Amino acid sequence: MVLPGRAMATFRLALIQLQVSSIKSDNLTRACGLVRKAAAQGAKIVSLPECFNSPYGTNYFPEYAEKIPGESTQKLSEVAKECSIYLIGGSIPEEDSGKLYNTCAMFGPDGALLVKHRKLHLFDIDVPGKITFQESKTLSPGDSFSTFETRCQLLVYPGAFNLTTGPAHWELLQRGRAVDNQVYVATASPARDDKASYVAWGHSTVVNPWGEVLAKAGTEETIVYSDIDLKKVTEIRQQIPIFNQKRSDLYSVEAKKP
Amino acid sequence: MVLPGRAMATFRLALIQLQVSSIKSDNLTRACGLVRKAAAQGAKIVSLPECFNSPYGTNYFPEYAEKIPGESTQKLSEVAKECSIYLIGGSIPEEDSGKLYNTCAMFGPDGALLVKHRKLHLFDIDVPGKITFQESKTLSPGDSFSTFETRCQLLVYPGAFNLTTGPAHWELLQRGRAVDNQVYVATASPARDDKASYVAWGHSTVVNPWGEVLAKAGTEETIVYSDIDLKKVTEIRQQIPIFNQKRSDLYSVEAKKP
Repeated sequence: MVLPGRAMATFRLALIQLQVSSIKSDNLTRACGLVRKAAAQGAKIVSLPECFNSPYGTNYFPEYAEKIPGESTQKLSEVAKECSIYLIGGSIPEEDSGKLYNTCAMFGPDGALLVKHRKLHLFDIDVPGKITFQESKTLSPGDSFSTFETRCQLLVYPGAFNLTTGPAHWELLQRGRAVDNQVYVATASPARDDKASYVAWGHSTVVNPWGEVLAKAGTEETIVYSDIDLKKVTEIRQQIPIFNQKRSDLYSVEAKKP
Repeated sequence: MVLPGRAMATFRLALIQLQVSSIKSDNLTRACGLVRKAAAQGAKIVSLPECFNSPYGTNYFPEYAEKIPGESTQKLSEVAKECSIYLIGGSIPEEDSGKLYNTCAMFGPDGALLVKHRKLHLFDIDVPGKITFQESKTLSPGDSFSTFETRCQLLVYPGAFNLTTGPAHWELLQRGRAVDNQVYVATASPARDDKASYVAWGHSTVVNPWGEVLAKAGTEETIVYSDIDLKKVTEIRQQIPIFNQKRSDLYSVEAKKP
């Protein structure tokens, strides 16, 4: 999810580390309640975690999947408008033409759907004795990009790492992406539920463009706040001008579809 | 520097964290001595640090620069052959047609030059009150790639970070690259010299494809050894098959020159 570079130069970001249960209506109600709470604390951009309305698991996806627009995204649109915030709707299992996707919908302060992004790179893992999980068993990957403005300054990643990849890679990868691209990186995870079939790592985090952790949750349900100052992005891009050294004469990343 | 995927499945890697002085002949002699010592300990691939025959600094580059082949690389070729090892010659300031480059030469066990790589992305930094340095003041960037086999399994990076970027980014970036690409990553730094105009971070490091630090030097002159097992690469690529999820249908990195 790539956020606009225009907009506000400083703003409060909130990450909702939701405790996801098996009751969809309850997940939606509590998610919206926490979004209202974050907005009351001055947050202008709020993100929910990956798979926030359903337990995360290939067996749950068919049962919890919805159309977009549908019940869950309708509620997100309403609460975004009510609070006048940008709302990154984590992700939900989406059903379309018989296929399932892991999809993020984002809404503007007027409640309009700004972008719908289907996860492009599905997550499969098989570490013997630790964890075996295959999104690709039931999900299809999306096949279009969802950048709605380039020159990204804040990268928000709703994600559900686990007890194997979490301690090894969760903070590392977001700090790495922050330094690589000289951007703020924020990750929103579900809260940990040790009784779930897939146990999420938690630890929703905000990292600045120098790679420093600004705020980090524990494992329980909580809201992580961070005041984002986009001048910091400009400052660091001046200090180490990697974009000036970029060798676009030698290579480029080419998108094959629009 | 990208190393071959064929070759040995397990081998000992050595990183020479050389104390670089302002006397070129002394740097060469001590570098070759440490290479011999590493080979005697069973190392089959040995790397020297960035700018190992000259102090690192734009004012030094013109004075220390050489042709390739030239004095320094001749010595590297000889010691590689003598010890029957692969030798990654860190880097030296190279002069060619009036331009200066930061260039790595690599030699095979028969002393043959396998590849000559000119640094493509020059390093400029200006952090007020901390450090100001511009490679681009005197150096030119190379303009060709030097991969001599694809599907890299070990990435060796001779690098001289400093006291600002070192603590913030040195370990982070190599662990990040290791996980991103599921490869071993090794970095060879000069030893720290607090009296130098550019103070290198040191801490030459080896990271495995899961992002774990296997070996790490302090700041003083030393040799870092690590036994590399390429089966670990295969194993981790099976555990989290990110290459299977790669969306080559959607994007690709295109080289614009061969």
